[in-house]
Amino acid sequence: MIHIDWKPSKESSKPLYIQIVEYFKEKINRGDWPVGSEIPTQRALARMFEVNRSTIVSALDELKAEGILEGKRKAGTKIINHSFPSLTHVQPNWQSYIEEGIHIPNLKTIKQINELEFNNHFIRLSTGEASPELFPAEKMAIVLREISKSMKNLGYEEPKGMVYLREQISNYLKLHGINASLSSILIVSGALQAIQLIAMGLLQPGSTVFLEKPSYLYSLQILQSMGMRRGGIPMDEEGIIGRLIKKYKRKNKSSILYTIPNFQNPTATVMSQNRRKELIKICQQEKIPIIEDDVYRELWIDNPPPTPLKSLDTNGLVLYVGSISKTLSPGLRIGWIVGPEPVINRLSDIKMQTDYGSSSLAQLTVGKWIETGLYEEHLHYLRKQLAIRRNITMDALEKYFSDIATWKIPSGGYYVWLSIKDPISMYKLFDEACKIGILLYPGYIYDSSPNQYLRISYSYASVRHLQEGLYKLSKLIRKLIKSNHK
Amino acid sequence: MIHIDWKPSKESSKPLYIQIVEYFKEKINRGDWPVGSEIPTQRALARMFEVNRSTIVSALDELKAEGILEGKRKAGTKIINHSFPSLTHVQPNWQSYIEEGIHIPNLKTIKQINELEFNNHFIRLSTGEASPELFPAEKMAIVLREISKSMKNLGYEEPKGMVYLREQISNYLKLHGINASLSSILIVSGALQAIQLIAMGLLQPGSTVFLEKPSYLYSLQILQSMGMRRGGIPMDEEGIIGRLIKKYKRKNKSSILYTIPNFQNPTATVMSQNRRKELIKICQQEKIPIIEDDVYRELWIDNPPPTPLKSLDTNGLVLYVGSISKTLSPGLRIGWIVGPEPVINRLSDIKMQTDYGSSSLAQLTVGKWIETGLYEEHLHYLRKQLAIRRNITMDALEKYFSDIATWKIPSGGYYVWLSIKDPISMYKLFDEACKIGILLYPGYIYDSSPNQYLRISYSYASVRHLQEGLYKLSKLIRKLIKSNHK
Repeated sequence: MIHIDWKPSKESSKPLYIQIVEYFKEKINRGDWPVGSEIPTQRALARMFEVNRSTIVSALDELKAEGILEGKRKAGTKIINHSFPSLTHVQPNWQSYIEEGIHIPNLKTIKQINELEFNNHFIRLSTGEASPELFPAEKMAIVLREISKSMKNLGYEEPKGMVYLREQISNYLKLHGINASLSSILIVSGALQAIQLIAMGLLQPGSTVFLEKPSYLYSLQILQSMGMRRGGIPMDEEGIIGRLIKKYKRKNKSSILYTIPNFQNPTATVMSQNRRKELIKICQQEKIPIIEDDVYRELWIDNPPPTPLKSLDTNGLVLYVGSISKTLSPGLRIGWIVGPEPVINRLSDIKMQTDYGSSSLAQLTVGKWIETGLYEEHLHYLRKQLAIRRNITMDALEKYFSDIATWKIPSGGYYVWLSIKDPISMYKLFDEACKIGILLYPGYIYDSSPNQYLRISYSYASVRHLQEGLYKLSKLIRKLIKSNHK
Repeated sequence: MIHIDWKPSKESSKPLYIQIVEYFKEKINRGDWPVGSEIPTQRALARMFEVNRSTIVSALDELKAEGILEGKRKAGTKIINHSFPSLTHVQPNWQSYIEEGIHIPNLKTIKQINELEFNNHFIRLSTGEASPELFPAEKMAIVLREISKSMKNLGYEEPKGMVYLREQISNYLKLHGINASLSSILIVSGALQAIQLIAMGLLQPGSTVFLEKPSYLYSLQILQSMGMRRGGIPMDEEGIIGRLIKKYKRKNKSSILYTIPNFQNPTATVMSQNRRKELIKICQQEKIPIIEDDVYRELWIDNPPPTPLKSLDTNGLVLYVGSISKTLSPGLRIGWIVGPEPVINRLSDIKMQTDYGSSSLAQLTVGKWIETGLYEEHLHYLRKQLAIRRNITMDALEKYFSDIATWKIPSGGYYVWLSIKDPISMYKLFDEACKIGILLYPGYIYDSSPNQYLRISYSYASVRHLQEGLYKLSKLIRKLIKSNHK
């Protein structure tokens, strides 16, 4: 059995599981742990490294995915040969290139979902996307025909994006209280790219990104890949608790706040008007810029949410991020950032160096959707459909989950955040759910520590699948609770 | 006058001019050099730092762009206030965020061109893009109508890109001797993103990217931003001199080779068949993977180029990069990488984390172009048009440049690489050309050291503008030569 004489550092900006992966590799590469060595159980490893078992699971998954460990049901986990069996001696050692790259691989669970989502046999309670049934195919055909009549050229666009689209977005943002000149708008390929550009262009390794705890941003590896820390701030029913930022802020370290004020991913919380004002005030005092990720704004079911933080911002504090991915089509890959001009200049420069701008065809298409009013029409329709789905989902939860879970009724967006009453292994739940054909996002991918939550999306699956999926899921959870009590 | 007691390190992976910029900032921030201090002349600075004057120009440009220095014609260059005058005290110090970001700003000259290209008054001998006149608007309208009839949904695609498009690309690549399974193809948003993903996913800080000297890749800051070195390898008329790689390779340091074998940007060189074979052999021996950037392949005028390096690659050595940006439309933002499956898996994972994939609408459009055969038809047309433009350009060069420059006749692609006989300042030439309404890329952006070259693109400007622009440019060069001799 191998000998472990080291513990990962909880102070490091590197995730614990990555530290453990690196420790394993070093030991194996140095020959300390020969091929064939048996690895202790997860429980034992968790004790030795003084970490949660979930961290061990992530580390072992990674090592298995990289072909360094091999787990066999009965025989335990062993160190196996390191290199891809398929690669010959003449080939460069791609594996070492893959391992040495800067970028941290996506979380195992997310990778698995990304792949399984394209398998038609699954009920997708995972997907944060409008159902294909809700895709406005007829309206899209109208827009494309419109475009094909007038199109003259499709070249590279200005660094900040197509002028026509920026005009349309500028007009559209006025409806939400934001006055944005064309030169303060940058077109990007979705909100995710917005976050990446901001991280690359404005943050430095070691800086802190404050965020809601839990948050979608925890599911991305991108900040950690660049050496940035994530500082989770608790939430209450009014949203992120802004006043806590002062407490968490480390002296002389640059930081930024990332928030999803409307129908937050994954909790569906809407930040109250008062909290918005308070947050702006605190961030002004502390000189912490805000990234406002507002991609869910239009998806209100009961009432429109308060106006954006950006509309309250008189000092260029807020970088406002929007997109049509959640409302019209994620496949177009179009979003935008609004912010102070020098910042937008900087980000557009990086965008140019990254991909020379977003697809002109997609930009033209989105511009036309907004200009013709078809976008506004579609939003009306989408809200009605979302209300139906939300209500059906609440009925199903009431029926199947009332004794095993708690939740708040979302007033918009795509998600309901389910808290399982009895402690069960969420890793096991995820795996077992996959086996019975249900995909969902376990709460641990949205947090730095394990929890008992599930994110259920009611936007994607068909109504029949929603009901069937929730029924089967409730049965599975009951089974796991039962086996816990044995 | 300020005191300089330091020299930049030529061993560092950081560009010299960036080192100098950082040195300036440190001195100013520490208060060593107070606001108002006068900066020595470029010539004096070049002597003090022991660098080329071009390096000084880049550094000063950067410092001016960042608002740290201010140059007045007669009064010399001075240190001015550091922060943006427009930012109030309540605002976070965006400028410090901007400076501390990881990403190095784009070269001044390139930024300037990116902006000026959208000013209609310029004759663009710079743009590496097919002329708007050559855009196949009618065929595109057919494709869009076709698509609008059958479109059902536009969601996120599989991590490697739309299956339909990968099928079409796989078929298309067979015509060029490349057998690529669907799982070894990744769809990207153009060749630039391909390079970025490869750098992020496979290279580590300190590793070396070998490349042709000069090369398009020198004009990108992306590798340097990630701490990678560029190792320029000289070329002859058969392409990059592969055998020199052994000499340049540093022990135990990972490295990769980036090459544009067909109608190289900027020199228009086509790598010979023999050189291709030799290069593959050497890189196999040295275990250096190859990035083959083949975006100009289809743009042959006289004869088709030899088959790709990838078609000679039996060991998964080559990452093949292609795109339709140069042939059909850069605005679609669609390209592809073909490589060993584990590498493609890794890159697709990063792509997902970066932007969730390329625009589905654009992917569908490109797939349809290929499937219908309209792409092949358009290539025939484009080659004929390029031949006309190439010939007109050669006539104009013969007429206006034969005594002041030398060049080789390009057998395809977009560019002619012009060598000015008399030594003149290429910085001055670029600036003066801008003033008379002509945009061009000076050779220094394609090299690590200054040179006497210009890249002239004959693909973009109208025939009338090509002739007019070259005539005016020749007059300007004559004027600069004359003033040199005074």
